[in-house]
Amino acid sequence: MSETANSRTTERKQDHIEICLHGDVVFNGKTTGFERFAFEHAALPEISFSDIDLSTSFLGKSIGAPLMISSMTGGYSEAATLNQRLAEAAERFGIPLGVGSMRQALENRSYRESFAVVRKYAPTVQIFANIGAPEVAKGLTESEINTMLELLRADGLIVHLNAAQELFQPEGNTDFRHVLEQLALLSAKIPVPVLVKEVGCGISASAARQLIAAGVKAIDVAGAGGISWQKVEEIRYTRQFGQERRFSLQALDELLNWGIPTAQCLIDIGALKKESPGLNGIEIVASGGVGSGMDVAKSLALGAQLAASARALLKALHDGVLEETITSWLNDLRAVMFLTGTATIAELRHKTLITKP
Amino acid sequence: MSETANSRTTERKQDHIEICLHGDVVFNGKTTGFERFAFEHAALPEISFSDIDLSTSFLGKSIGAPLMISSMTGGYSEAATLNQRLAEAAERFGIPLGVGSMRQALENRSYRESFAVVRKYAPTVQIFANIGAPEVAKGLTESEINTMLELLRADGLIVHLNAAQELFQPEGNTDFRHVLEQLALLSAKIPVPVLVKEVGCGISASAARQLIAAGVKAIDVAGAGGISWQKVEEIRYTRQFGQERRFSLQALDELLNWGIPTAQCLIDIGALKKESPGLNGIEIVASGGVGSGMDVAKSLALGAQLAASARALLKALHDGVLEETITSWLNDLRAVMFLTGTATIAELRHKTLITKP
Amino acid sequence: MSETANSRTTERKQDHIEICLHGDVVFNGKTTGFERFAFEHAALPEISFSDIDLSTSFLGKSIGAPLMISSMTGGYSEAATLNQRLAEAAERFGIPLGVGSMRQALENRSYRESFAVVRKYAPTVQIFANIGAPEVAKGLTESEINTMLELLRADGLIVHLNAAQELFQPEGNTDFRHVLEQLALLSAKIPVPVLVKEVGCGISASAARQLIAAGVKAIDVAGAGGISWQKVEEIRYTRQFGQERRFSLQALDELLNWGIPTAQCLIDIGALKKESPGLNGIEIVASGGVGSGMDVAKSLALGAQLAASARALLKALHDGVLEETITSWLNDLRAVMFLTGTATIAELRHKTLITKP
Amino acid sequence: MSETANSRTTERKQDHIEICLHGDVVFNGKTTGFERFAFEHAALPEISFSDIDLSTSFLGKSIGAPLMISSMTGGYSEAATLNQRLAEAAERFGIPLGVGSMRQALENRSYRESFAVVRKYAPTVQIFANIGAPEVAKGLTESEINTMLELLRADGLIVHLNAAQELFQPEGNTDFRHVLEQLALLSAKIPVPVLVKEVGCGISASAARQLIAAGVKAIDVAGAGGISWQKVEEIRYTRQFGQERRFSLQALDELLNWGIPTAQCLIDIGALKKESPGLNGIEIVASGGVGSGMDVAKSLALGAQLAASARALLKALHDGVLEETITSWLNDLRAVMFLTGTATIAELRHKTLITKP
Ligand SMILES: Cc1cc2nc3c(=O)[nH]c(=O)nc-3n(C[C@H](O)[C@H](O)[C@H](O)COP(=O)(O)O)c2cc1C
Ligand SMILES: Cc1cc2nc3c(=O)[nH]c(=O)nc-3n(C[C@H](O)[C@H](O)[C@H](O)COP(=O)(O)O)c2cc1C
Ligand SMILES: Cc1cc2nc3c(=O)[nH]c(=O)nc-3n(C[C@H](O)[C@H](O)[C@H](O)COP(=O)(O)O)c2cc1C
Ligand SMILES: Cc1cc2nc3c(=O)[nH]c(=O)nc-3n(C[C@H](O)[C@H](O)[C@H](O)COP(=O)(O)O)c2cc1C
Repeated sequence: MSETANSRTTERKQDHIEICLHGDVVFNGKTTGFERFAFEHAALPEISFSDIDLSTSFLGKSIGAPLMISSMTGGYSEAATLNQRLAEAAERFGIPLGVGSMRQALENRSYRESFAVVRKYAPTVQIFANIGAPEVAKGLTESEINTMLELLRADGLIVHLNAAQELFQPEGNTDFRHVLEQLALLSAKIPVPVLVKEVGCGISASAARQLIAAGVKAIDVAGAGGISWQKVEEIRYTRQFGQERRFSLQALDELLNWGIPTAQCLIDIGALKKESPGLNGIEIVASGGVGSGMDVAKSLALGAQLAASARALLKALHDGVLEETITSWLNDLRAVMFLTGTATIAELRHKTLITKP
Repeated sequence: MSETANSRTTERKQDHIEICLHGDVVFNGKTTGFERFAFEHAALPEISFSDIDLSTSFLGKSIGAPLMISSMTGGYSEAATLNQRLAEAAERFGIPLGVGSMRQALENRSYRESFAVVRKYAPTVQIFANIGAPEVAKGLTESEINTMLELLRADGLIVHLNAAQELFQPEGNTDFRHVLEQLALLSAKIPVPVLVKEVGCGISASAARQLIAAGVKAIDVAGAGGISWQKVEEIRYTRQFGQERRFSLQALDELLNWGIPTAQCLIDIGALKKESPGLNGIEIVASGGVGSGMDVAKSLALGAQLAASARALLKALHDGVLEETITSWLNDLRAVMFLTGTATIAELRHKTLITKP
Repeated sequence: MSETANSRTTERKQDHIEICLHGDVVFNGKTTGFERFAFEHAALPEISFSDIDLSTSFLGKSIGAPLMISSMTGGYSEAATLNQRLAEAAERFGIPLGVGSMRQALENRSYRESFAVVRKYAPTVQIFANIGAPEVAKGLTESEINTMLELLRADGLIVHLNAAQELFQPEGNTDFRHVLEQLALLSAKIPVPVLVKEVGCGISASAARQLIAAGVKAIDVAGAGGISWQKVEEIRYTRQFGQERRFSLQALDELLNWGIPTAQCLIDIGALKKESPGLNGIEIVASGGVGSGMDVAKSLALGAQLAASARALLKALHDGVLEETITSWLNDLRAVMFLTGTATIAELRHKTLITKP
Repeated sequence: MSETANSRTTERKQDHIEICLHGDVVFNGKTTGFERFAFEHAALPEISFSDIDLSTSFLGKSIGAPLMISSMTGGYSEAATLNQRLAEAAERFGIPLGVGSMRQALENRSYRESFAVVRKYAPTVQIFANIGAPEVAKGLTESEINTMLELLRADGLIVHLNAAQELFQPEGNTDFRHVLEQLALLSAKIPVPVLVKEVGCGISASAARQLIAAGVKAIDVAGAGGISWQKVEEIRYTRQFGQERRFSLQALDELLNWGIPTAQCLIDIGALKKESPGLNGIEIVASGGVGSGMDVAKSLALGAQLAASARALLKALHDGVLEETITSWLNDLRAVMFLTGTATIAELRHKTLITKP
C-alpha cells in the first residue's frame, strides 16, 4: 500500500471515530427491539443480592461478566491510546475485547504497534483479531493469518460482514463474492476459533445457518438499532461530493436505516438453534445498540452467550467514564438478576421474557 | 434498636409520607391495565338502583363494601393521627384496614401506641398487622407474633414483599433468602390468616403458587401502575448521595418502572385459580394504583375478592376528603352495577369484561 | 301531573334541545366504530350512477331511502315547530320519523298538539309514537296506548331504554325492574309493531335476544359514538348542584363515555341473527352518531335495515339546512353504491366491509 | 366534437397537469402500504454490486429495467413537448411508456401529432395506446382501434377504469354499464395485448378475476396512496361551483381518499394468482404512488412484473431532473438487490418481504 493510500486510511479511521462520537449516526425509526421485552418481577427472589455471580464463559474460557468490548480501532498511531484504555478496562473486568480491522497491520508494519498495545495492557483476557469480509473473499494467506494472531496472541479471529457500509463508503469494496467459500477454508486452517459479525445490519437466521456450515464457532449479530454505518459513510460521502445524488431521497431513508433489529436477530437465530440441537455449541454474541446492563440481561434471556458494545463504550471512554459505565452496566445486570431471583448467568439464560402490551 | 436508629426510622417513615404525597412517584409509561377493559352496557338492567347491595365478605367475615384501606403507617408518634383517621373511616364504612410495618413496635415499646390507636377507633372491622419479608426471613418468634397481634387484636397478619424497594433504599436489606420457608413456618404456627402482598411491583402467578403452597390464605397483588416504591427510595437516595450513579441512566428508567401491572397480576392469578379448583378458597386482593370505584368494579370482574388502596386514600386524607372520597368510589361502584344490571357483589365477580379496541 | 311538574318538564325538554345543540355532549375517546371499516373499491361498477335506487322497506312498508329521523321532541308548545319541520322533511324524502317521549301527552291534553302536528305535515310516511322504559315498567293501560297511537295515527310504538340517562338525570327514575316483562305484555296487546331503542349507550346481543323473546319487532341500537346523554344530564346536574360530587373524577370520565359503540352493536347483533335464522324477520336500525351517508352505507353492510339520526339532523334543522343535509347524505350513499357497483339497497346489505389496517 | 368541446377538453387536460403538479392531490391518511414491508438484510450477499442486472421482460419483450412510464397526456398541442421528453427518457433506459387517453385523437385529427411524437423519440421501446372505460363501454369500432394503434405503432392498448374520477369530474360520464362485455369483445378482435389499469383507486382481486376472464393480458393496479383523482376533480369542481355541496363533509373525506392501497392490490391479486396457476401468464404492473426504486423493489417482491409511475416522473420532468430521477431509482433498486444478495430481477420476485412490527 502506498504512503498516500495509508494516510487516506488513517484519515478514514479518524473520521470514523469522530463521526461516531459527534455525528447523527443512530438509527432513525428503528430500534434494537429490546424495549419491547420485559422480565417478569419475582416478588420472592429467594436470593441475597450479594450472592449474585456474573461470571460465565466464552468460547471455552471463563470471563468476569457476559460483556465484550466490540472491535473498534487500530492501524494508525492515535489508535494506540484508545486501544490501551479499552484493554485496561477489559483486563480490570476480566471481559473479552476485539480490535479494529487489521488490514493496515498486514499492509504496513509501522501500524502494528497500535494493535500490539492491547495484549500488553490486557495480558489475561480473551483478545480477538479482526478482518473484513472483502479481505477474506480474496483469500488470506497463512502468513497474513499468523501475523494477525501473533501480534495479539489472539484467542480468535473476528471476520466482519459490512456490505451496507461498503455500499455507502465512497471508496467501498462491493465485491462480496466467495466470502462463504473462503470463510470455510479459513475456519479449516486457522488454529483459533473464527467468529463472524456484522457491524449494525444484523445477521439473519439463514445467514447464520450458512456461517455455521462454514465452520464458524460464534456469531455476533451486530444488529440494527444502535449505530448505522450507512449513516457514517453517508456523512463522509456528502463531505466529499456534496448533497446525495446516488439514491432517491425516499429510498435513502430506508437504506440508511436498513438492517435487522438486534433483538430480532437473537430471536430468529435462537429459533434456528432450537430446531437443530446440533448447533448447541455455537455461541451467539448480542450487539448493535446495546446500551445498558438491562439490554445485556435481555440479550442473554434471548439466547446470547454474552453481549457486546462498541459505540456506547467509545462515548464513555471519550467522556472519561469508561470503567464507571461498565460498573453501572454490571449493576443494572445484578439488579435485574435480583428482581427476577436469578443467582447465576446460566440461570438468566433460561428466563422467559414477556412482550410488552 | 438504638435511639439513633429509631430516629432514623422515624425520619424515613415521615419521608415516605411526604414523598408519597408530594413527589413524582407514579409509574411512568406503565399503567394498572384497568383502562384496557370495559364493562358491557346492559340496556335492560332489570334492577332498581336503590336495591344495589355492596356488602360482601373477606376471609370469612362480612364487610360493608369490597374495599380495604392498605397498610401504610405506624411506628412513630405522628403516625397515630393518620391511623386514627383511617380507622374512623374503616369503621364508618365497615371495611378492613391494614397498618404499616410493625418492626418498630417490636423493637421499641414507645412506638406501640401509634398502632394500638387503630383498634380503638375501629372496634368492629377487620384489622391486619403488617411485617416485611426481611423480618420474616430471619424468623419471627412466637412472642413477636403475639405482640403484633395483641396490640391490634388483629384479624390477620400481612407480610409485605418489597424486593425492589429494598434494592433502591439507601439502607435497604437485600437478603431475600428463606422467605418462603419461613412463611410456611409462620403460617403453620400463627392463629390468624396470613396475607402476603407486594408494595407496587405485583405478584406473578408463579409467586402466587409458591405462596399458596406455603399456607398463605390471601394474596394482595399490589401491582404496578400506581406508586413506584423504587421512585420513592430513589428520591431519598439522591437526596443523600446526589445524582444516581449506581445504575446506567437507560436501565434506571426501566428499573424505576419495574413491575407487573395490577390487572395483569389479577388475570394471571385468575387463570391459575381456574386451572386448580383446589385454590378456590384463596382470596385475592387487587391493589396497586386503584383510583376509583370503576377500578374496584373491574378488579372484582377480574377475580378479586376486594380491592385495596393506599396512596389515593392517603392523598384524600391529606386533603381532608377521605370519607367523601370513599363515598364517591362506592357510588362509582353502584353506577357500574346499575348499568350492568348487577344487584350484588357476588354477581359482579361473574361479569365478563371486554377489551377495548 | 301538577302545573309545576309540567313546567319543569317543559324546561327540561327545552334544556335538552339547547344542550344538545350547544353543549359539549359528544363521546370523548370513543367513536361509533364506523371509521374502522371501509368498502372495497369496484374498478368495474358495471352500473350507471343514474340507475341507483335508494328505496327499500321498513316493517313491511316501502320507504324512499334507508334513513329515519329519530325520536326527539314534543310535549311542550315550542316543540310543535320543530316537529312540523321534521315531518315536512320526512314527507319529502318518504322516510320514517319518530316523535319524542309522549309521557306529557298522556298526562296533559294541552301538550298533545305538539305531537299531532307531525301527522298533519307527514301524512303518508311511517310515524312512530315514543315512550320510556320507566313508563313501560309501570305498565301502560290500553287507554294510554290508544291515546298515543291515535294522536299520530302511528305505525308503531318506540320504547326507549335510557338507564344511563336516568342515572345522571337530577330527577331521574332508576327503577328498571319489570321492563322486560311489561314489554312482553305490551307487545302482545298493542295492534302495531313495538320497536325498542337505546338513546346512546347501545344494545348488546344479549339484550337484543331478550327483547326479541319479548316480542319486539325492531331494535334501534342507538349506540355510543355520537351524543352521550350522560353528558347532557351531567351539564344539567352541575347547573343545579355545582361541581360533580356523586362520582370520583376518574370514574366519571368512563361513566360519561359509557356505552357500546354503534358499529359494535351492529356486529354483535348481526352475529346473533346469523346464529338463529329464526330472527331473520327482526329489523335492526343503526343509530348513535350516524353523521353521513357513508355511515348509512356502512350500517347497512353491517346488517341494518336502515340508519337513523337525531342530533345531526337537529343541528341541520337549527342551521336551516335540514333538507340539504339529507340530500347530501343520500348523495354520499349513492356515491358509495356507485363505487362498489351496487344498484339497490338490498345488494348493499350483502357487501363485505374490510377492516382498515 | 365541436370546437368548443375540444377547447374545453384541452383546458381540462392542462388543468390536470397543473393541478397534479401544484395542487394538494395526494391521499390523506392512506398510503400505498409499501412502507409496512421491509426486505431482510443479507449479511452474506455473495454477489458483486457491479454484476447486478436490471433487465427483465414485459409482455414478451425485453426491457432495460422493471419500470414503466405511466399513461399521462396527449391530445392538445402543448402535450407534444411533454410526450417527447417522456419518450426520450423511455428510449434511453429501454423501458415501456404509455400515452394519455386518445379520445381526442379519435375525435379530431389535429391533435394526433401530440401522440405520434412519442414513437418518433422512442423508436425501439414498447409504447401503449390508451382509452377510457366509458369509450370502451360504448364499443370501439375497428377503425378507431386501428387509428390509435397505427398512430403509435403501439405494442398494446391500455384501458383505464376511472369510476371515482368520473364521479367527481364536473362533466364526468358515470355510465359504467357493459364495460366488461365490451372489454371481452375488444380483447378478442385487437391484434395487440389489452392492459387494463385504474388511475389511483386500485383493482381488487375480484375485479382482476373478471378482467382476466375477459381476455386482458396485463393489469396495472394503479392503487391508492399516490395521487387521488377524486381530489384533482374536486379542485376543478370547486373552482367552477364554489364550496362542495354534493356530499356531506364527513363522507367527502372518505370519498376523496377512496381506494385500495397499491400494496394491498398486489397482495390480493398475488393470492389470486397463487390459487389459480392458469393465471401465471397474466402480468401485473404495480402503480399508484410508486416513489422510488425501493417501492419498485417491493412491488416485484409482492408479485409485480414491473412498477409504473406517472405523477412522480411528471414532477421530475417539470423540475428538469427526469433522467436523474430514473437513474436514482435504478440505483435504489440495485442497492436493495445488493443488500439482499439478488443478482437478477427474476430472483428479486422470489424474495419474501417481512412486515414491520
Ligand atoms: C469507531 C468504530 C469503529 C469500528 N470499527 C470496526 C472494525 O474495524 N471492525 C469491526 O468488525 N467492527 C467495527 N466497528 C463495529 C462495531 O464492532 C459494532 O459491530 C457496531 O458498532 C455495532 O455495535 P454498537 O451499536 O455497540 O456500536 C466499529 C465501531 C465503531 C463505533
Ligand atoms: C405512605 C405509604 C406507606 C406504606 N407503608 C407500607 C408498609 O409499611 N407496609 C406495607 O405492606 N405496605 C406499605 N405501603 C404500600 C401500600 O400498602 C400499597 O401496597 C402500595 O402503596 C400500592 O397501593 P396504592 O397504589 O394504592 O398506593 C405503603 C404505602 C404508602 C403510600
Ligand atoms: C334533542 C333530543 C331529544 C331526544 N329525545 C328522545 C326521546 O324523547 N325519546 C327517545 O327515544 N330518544 C330521544 N332522543 C335520542 C335519539 O332518538 C337518539 O337515540 C340519540 O340521540 C342517538 O342518536 P344520534 O347520535 O343520531 O343523536 C333524543 C335526542 C335528541 C338529540
Ligand atoms: C397528469 C396526469 C394525467 C393522466 N392521464 C391519464 C390518462 O389519460 N389515462 C390513464 O390511463 N391514466 C392517466 N393518468 C393516471 C396515471 O397513469 C396513473 O395511473 C396514476 O396517476 C397513478 O399513478 P401515480 O401515483 O404514479 O401517479 C394520469 C396521471 C397524471 C399525473
